[in-house]
Amino acid sequence: MKKRFLMTPGPTQIPPEVLLASAQPIIHHRTAEYSELFARTIDGLKYVFQTDNDIFFFASSGTGAMESVVVNLCSPGDEVLVCSSGKFGERWQQLAETYGLKARVLDYPYGSPVEPDDIASSLSVHDGIKVVFVTHSETSTGVVNDIEAIGDIVDKTDAVLVADSISGMGSAEFRTDSWHVDVAVAGSQKALMLPPGLAFASVSGKAWKLVEQSTLPRYYFDWRKARAGIKKDKPTTPFTPAVSLTVALDSSLAIIREEGLDDLFRRHRTMGRATREAVKALGLELFSPDEERCSSVTAVKVPDGIDDAELRRLMLDRFGVQLAGGQGTMKGEIIRVGHCGFYNYSDIIVTITALELALKTLGHPVEIGSGVSRAEAIFAEEGS
Amino acid sequence: MKKRFLMTPGPTQIPPEVLLASAQPIIHHRTAEYSELFARTIDGLKYVFQTDNDIFFFASSGTGAMESVVVNLCSPGDEVLVCSSGKFGERWQQLAETYGLKARVLDYPYGSPVEPDDIASSLSVHDGIKVVFVTHSETSTGVVNDIEAIGDIVDKTDAVLVADSISGMGSAEFRTDSWHVDVAVAGSQKALMLPPGLAFASVSGKAWKLVEQSTLPRYYFDWRKARAGIKKDKPTTPFTPAVSLTVALDSSLAIIREEGLDDLFRRHRTMGRATREAVKALGLELFSPDEERCSSVTAVKVPDGIDDAELRRLMLDRFGVQLAGGQGTMKGEIIRVGHCGFYNYSDIIVTITALELALKTLGHPVEIGSGVSRAEAIFAEEGS
Repeated sequence: MKKRFLMTPGPTQIPPEVLLASAQPIIHHRTAEYSELFARTIDGLKYVFQTDNDIFFFASSGTGAMESVVVNLCSPGDEVLVCSSGKFGERWQQLAETYGLKARVLDYPYGSPVEPDDIASSLSVHDGIKVVFVTHSETSTGVVNDIEAIGDIVDKTDAVLVADSISGMGSAEFRTDSWHVDVAVAGSQKALMLPPGLAFASVSGKAWKLVEQSTLPRYYFDWRKARAGIKKDKPTTPFTPAVSLTVALDSSLAIIREEGLDDLFRRHRTMGRATREAVKALGLELFSPDEERCSSVTAVKVPDGIDDAELRRLMLDRFGVQLAGGQGTMKGEIIRVGHCGFYNYSDIIVTITALELALKTLGHPVEIGSGVSRAEAIFAEEGS
Repeated sequence: MKKRFLMTPGPTQIPPEVLLASAQPIIHHRTAEYSELFARTIDGLKYVFQTDNDIFFFASSGTGAMESVVVNLCSPGDEVLVCSSGKFGERWQQLAETYGLKARVLDYPYGSPVEPDDIASSLSVHDGIKVVFVTHSETSTGVVNDIEAIGDIVDKTDAVLVADSISGMGSAEFRTDSWHVDVAVAGSQKALMLPPGLAFASVSGKAWKLVEQSTLPRYYFDWRKARAGIKKDKPTTPFTPAVSLTVALDSSLAIIREEGLDDLFRRHRTMGRATREAVKALGLELFSPDEERCSSVTAVKVPDGIDDAELRRLMLDRFGVQLAGGQGTMKGEIIRVGHCGFYNYSDIIVTITALELALKTLGHPVEIGSGVSRAEAIFAEEGS
């Protein structure tokens, strides 16, 4: 008997009722039935995004939606500002380079947050910057950036603010409209509790002005086509949508609505805090900042003398708990615990238990139960 | 009690075991488990495509894979030949225009096939043509083009042959390698018996030379990244794949292998023939050619005095059979029966029965049972 606990920052666990929703007999997408479903999921996403802006759907991974931002907002030679402190900040930079933009890059070390003041300085010195690209939740490090502060700064300028919230949306607080985020990007396989294959972008009126000016060619990811589709009496997508994933989305959004965003964010904050406190109680060092905001992913330094791959293999094979390792230059340096989406106290307790048992097995000095007790104390304190 | 028969040319019916496979608990994509699954599905697709070429996966609709062809093979100003006789031929043209190609267009009326001789003439007159774009199964009309003849012609030139077989692959005979098709595109939601959201492109060595020369920017749909992924010891995708759909693909490919391509094509040919014969027996006029090759979709002219939308609504609401209408300029003119994928004699008999009953209800003169009897006679004759 194997019992598995997927604790990676995407894909994430999926509620059984959502999985079963995705397995319903397929329906045709050019029907009133699908239009109603589609409109309902847009409304549900607006609730999660906390926005009145239009939201566009793509059958793609999150990267597809990120590319859609670049090709719809920009023209070759456009001056843009990329804020990068991890693999997904670098992705904005790669996209900007691929499409011939003139990218100014604010580059921070992995594990550090973006400094809003640096953005203010850049925008005041370089007043031709059209778009600012940031990452909300940097999946590769666990950092969650202060989008509220960044939004206040960019809102006072002519620049458009784009935030990748693929691993943040629905787990770390994100207020699209009141934080002045012009374009927010999300993906299905994180806190939205779905399989990968759907991605979303919300687009403000300020951003739409750039869409009208953009000269980059685009077809599949063309927001003008997507917008024409959702403005129809019977909303639709320009190309065949990922029907089964949209049906599943309808199911997961209902779960999110029932919990309510306040409770949802509180649950994630508590899981983040419990994980961090447990890890510290075990004598391990956090890699992601020890901050309330970092409620999506917790990154932990691999202790000296422990092989990261061996640790994770042991946790998976013997205890059924799957963590992620480090990406790129972080490989071997950190392990990452994802706790965004369909997770609660039970998953954190199991994960910390498996971590303790695995470290003990590998000969690392741990006091069995110390991390778990600390996590449980946090859950008790927070009233979980 | 409602019993529904989805008889549209995509999405198509999905075997229950494939639906349930898609609903399995999600697995992580950067694992040996996923690499094995991914490699197995590539092998299965090579069997269906009848190719030894590389096959790339995209989390997208079929149009995304079509766009991937243009951005990976071409450079702005490239001279290309587009063969178009329906909505999906026009899509190649739109993509070519979007990306600044110099497109010569062989334009045929909806419902007509592409004439291979015209392609030979064009290629001999315009020897700068780099790519020839054709549609294998034109979903909008039911036409299946003679790719074998076209392949023989293009193979003798320096041009690369691209065929959209989104609604053809796995239902109408298609031999990628022996027909000299350099790039073949397929989608999940047709004869591969899956939900929409996955698309594929096979790429020959001849085509790869163009990939190396192409200057169009691309990121999400970059074949170079996809190729690097499948060449790894543990094959992978550059971006998060549509995991649940790939698991389902593994299940549907097993079904296809078990039937075998010979039986599979025979089954589709018989369904196509039975549908055409039944429709003619009812005194209706075929819109798609009355040809053995047209085994994916059958298009039928809406009889005078009958409203297409009313006919389809009645068939769906009262008899549970869902057909497609005409697209674009064909709207109101034709109805389309999809029979590609998880279909056999039973679906055709039910569809023709519902068509007879609905036409009778609408006051159109039909001899009840005449179409069904004719279809059954074909199935008897073909030994189904």
